[in-house]
Formats: sequence, structure tokens, C-alpha cells
Amino acid sequence: MIKVYFIGTGGGAPNKRGLPALLLQREGLYALFDAGEGTQQRLIDSGLGFMKIRVIGISHLHGDHVLGLPGLLETMGMYSRRDKITLLGPSGLKDFLLEVFSRTHFQPNFSIEFRDSYEDADVRITKFKTCHVIESYGFLFEEKERIKIDAEKLRSEGVNDWKIIRLLKEGKRVEIGTKVLIPEDYLVKKKGVRIAYTGDTAPCASVINSVRDVDLLVHDSTFLDEKEAHDYGHSNSKDAAEVALRSNAKRLALIHISPRYDDATPLLKEALKVFEKAFLPEPFSYYVIRD
Amino acid sequence: MIKVYFIGTGGGAPNKRGLPALLLQREGLYALFDAGEGTQQRLIDSGLGFMKIRVIGISHLHGDHVLGLPGLLETMGMYSRRDKITLLGPSGLKDFLLEVFSRTHFQPNFSIEFRDSYEDADVRITKFKTCHVIESYGFLFEEKERIKIDAEKLRSEGVNDWKIIRLLKEGKRVEIGTKVLIPEDYLVKKKGVRIAYTGDTAPCASVINSVRDVDLLVHDSTFLDEKEAHDYGHSNSKDAAEVALRSNAKRLALIHISPRYDDATPLLKEALKVFEKAFLPEPFSYYVIRD
Repeated sequence: MIKVYFIGTGGGAPNKRGLPALLLQREGLYALFDAGEGTQQRLIDSGLGFMKIRVIGISHLHGDHVLGLPGLLETMGMYSRRDKITLLGPSGLKDFLLEVFSRTHFQPNFSIEFRDSYEDADVRITKFKTCHVIESYGFLFEEKERIKIDAEKLRSEGVNDWKIIRLLKEGKRVEIGTKVLIPEDYLVKKKGVRIAYTGDTAPCASVINSVRDVDLLVHDSTFLDEKEAHDYGHSNSKDAAEVALRSNAKRLALIHISPRYDDATPLLKEALKVFEKAFLPEPFSYYVIRD
Repeated sequence: MIKVYFIGTGGGAPNKRGLPALLLQREGLYALFDAGEGTQQRLIDSGLGFMKIRVIGISHLHGDHVLGLPGLLETMGMYSRRDKITLLGPSGLKDFLLEVFSRTHFQPNFSIEFRDSYEDADVRITKFKTCHVIESYGFLFEEKERIKIDAEKLRSEGVNDWKIIRLLKEGKRVEIGTKVLIPEDYLVKKKGVRIAYTGDTAPCASVINSVRDVDLLVHDSTFLDEKEAHDYGHSNSKDAAEVALRSNAKRLALIHISPRYDDATPLLKEALKVFEKAFLPEPFSYYVIRD
């Protein structure tokens, strides 16, 4: 199961959309991308909570993306978290956090690990450069390629014994009488799901190159038709759609909507002209990538 | 008109009550006491906004009381605030803010003044020591004594001329024929409203001495019957009631309710046994001190 929860979809200043926060769930793994002020409250309000979060990626150190992080970690400490948490982000992230912790008299009783990437048996989360006005990254979440036995094919050849299937999966040859089963003949590679979150960015080549063929692209779409959007290090919704098109994304979610837009449907309309699989996630909504 | 808005009435970790934030309005003056994470969002949700706030008092530098301050000020900057703001609080407040501003790439385009007290023609806001586990203050808001002309008395003596009234108000003697009006005979002093907010504190003498006879005491009431409350630098609700009684407060509002209590009415019941003018403000509710 893979779900993406759009906790906060606004940007800059808070309004009903909240500030940037995207929660990704794959089975028991929860990863949070960005933590604008109020993220912990919104995670509570959404019924999701935050104690299970194992990885947090912070795209950059502008207040609207990071000011919810110290409080989130301090509350985890208050609720006696013991599990390690892995943080990915810009170079100043660790110093920022340690400064705030020290000045607010907080000492975490769990381990906080600052890394460039996260990896476990099933997934990998890496960062890629984006085009903003300060050091900034997007995050690419990738399931590892999974090797599966083609049980259908085995069954069609009369093989149903799970012990044989296990041996093949382990890469071992199996002899049944005179018949020899060679693992490679029955293994299929299953491509993993890939999801990208850009944080704040103008449309840029580094993003296009980093997010090719993702199942879901969550892209900066701050403005409708702001001439200076790129100078501000942001995208108009049409820019986001062009990045989705050029990177061959399967779906595009428009986020970081400026509070200047009470109604953001015009942004969606512009994006749809370029990329028909764009959508505008409601705050607190979620998108199911795999049930 | 004087109103106290209970923006966030919880403490420690966020829940439906929100984190500490109390907004006091006297005519055109808005003063905020404490700014837990999410305060700016709650001020928006309450319809009050935050651009008019002129004074912010921070009781102490624990995260639940101060982590909403940088974002609030950064949003004020984003909305092009030009008016000076006065900040009162503990000694580390300025350095905390400047560190966060610098690390989140924010430069305020309005003046932020760090002071020990605030004073204008009508009111005075001072801080007093409280008994918490780190340097901490409460705030006393006082309207200045107002000198008014006893128009009734003048009218009964046949004086209705507003020019004469103005001269008396300015402290000048007025001669009408052979009659001499002496200002002191027609001036009445009107005591101003006084409101105290304690922030986090165990019951303590410094608080009792500082808040005598206030019209409203807003006091730490974190727990119902936690034996170690005082060691934690907090009060049980009964403690708050005893402080209200001993300091001769007119009304007591119980705040900083721990998230361990889903329903806080037992805290109110305990307080009412000691001080019958106690109440438990709902988050987002307000209390009118003078219409």
C-alpha cells in the first residue's frame, strides 16, 4: 500500500490550505516532506498522528517549510519517542535545529540522524537540486525493484510446491526427476513505485532530469500567471505541467498554492491545457498510488 | 472596550485546545501573550488576524510558548508590515529570534523593539517573575488611572459650557463672575482595568504579590492533581484558585490545560471549590471586561 497525504498545500503565508507538508506512507514506513508551522497540529487533526514518522525531508530553510519541524520533534520527545529519526535536507538544517533546541531548552531523548539519503530493504529516498533562491532540494522516493516468482507460469507447468517456489526465489536450481528448473526462467522483475516532491522551484532542468517517469510528481505551483515567478524561484501552474510533460510523469499534483488565490481552480485549468493528468489536491486529502 | 481572546488554551503538546496564545484588545491596541506553534493560523481562523498586534509578550522560551513567534513575525513581513512591534520577554528572546531569522533567511522590514515594558498614553504592560523551571515571566496589563470631569456635578451647579469643562480638565481655575471653579473639586479619578497572565508557573508568592486585585487573572492550570506539578514548575487547578483567592482577583481563567485531559471540567470543579469566580475558557472564546 502506498498513499500520499496532502497535509498542507499552501505556501508562503498560512491560510486554510496550511503550510507545506506531504506525508508518504508505504506499508509501515511514514516519510514527511517539509514541515511548515502547524504541521504537527494538522497531522493530529487528520487523525494520522506523527509518532510513526521515520524520515523527514526538508526542502530548504525558508520559514514556511521548516518552522514546524522543531515543534514536531519536541512533541515527539514529550511523548517519549525512542525510535531513531532520519533527517534529509539542506546543509544548514542540523545547525538550525540544534540552535532552536538549545534555545528552547530541549534535549531529544531519541537519536536524530542527519543524512543525504535514506535506504532500507524496500525503498530509497534521495534528494535532487531544485531551482530556488536559496539552497534547495526536492526528494525522490523509490521503491526498489522487486523480484517475484512467476507463479502462474510454474502452475501452468504443473509446479505448485511452495518449497520449490522458495528455492527458485532464492536463485537455486531445482531438479524434479529429469526436469531442471532454472530460476531465471521463472523470475519477473517488478518495477517499484516512484514519487517526487519538488519543494519550491522554478521550472528547471535538474528537476526534469531527476524525476523522469515518476508515478506521481508533486510540483511547486505557487502562481497562476506571475511574470516574476521564476525570479522568485517559483513556478506558475503551467510551468509545473510542462515539467510533468517533459519528464513523462504519470500524474501531477499542484501544491504550494499562494494565499493570494482564494480559489485555485484557475491554476488547475491552466495546467490541464498542457498536462491532462494534473490535479489540485485538497488539503487533508490523500492519493492512493497502490492499494 | 476591553476583550481577552483565548486563542490557545492548551499546553505542552498541541491538541484541539491549541498551544498558549492570549490576545488582549483595548480599543485599537492589540497585545499578544505567548505564541505557541500555530498561533498565526489560529488568529486567522478566529477572524482576528494579526497585523494590528503592537505588543507581544513571551513568558519563557519553552517551545510550546515561543515556536509560533518566528512564523508570525515572518508572515507580518511577507504582508509588508511597516509598523514597529514591541517584544517583551526573557533575556534570550532577542537572540533566539535573530538566530531563527538568520537561519531561515528572513530580514524584517519593520522595526522590532525588545523592551522590559510597554507604555503608551493609556496603558502599561509590565512583566513579573513567575516560578517555572527556567527564566519565566508573567505579564500585567494595566490601564492608567483616568481623570474625568464630574459633568453631573457641574450641571447641577448650572455649568454646561464645554469650554469651561475643558479648562477644568486641563487643571485650570475658571472664574464665572464672582464664582471660582477649582479643578480639584470637579475631577474624579477612574481606576483602570488590570489583567494578569502568568504563563507557566507553580503557585508562588511573586505572582500573588504582582497580581493583587486584578480584574482578570489568567493562570497556569496544567493539571488536576499531579503530585509533581510544582516540581515541573506548573500548577494544579486548585493552586490557581488559591492564588486567585489570596491575590483578591475578581475572576480567574484556567489555561495551559495538559493534553492528558480530554475533558477539563474536573479541573474547573476543583478550582471552584476554592474560588467561585473561576472559569474554563473554550479555545477561540473571548471574555469581555468592558464593553
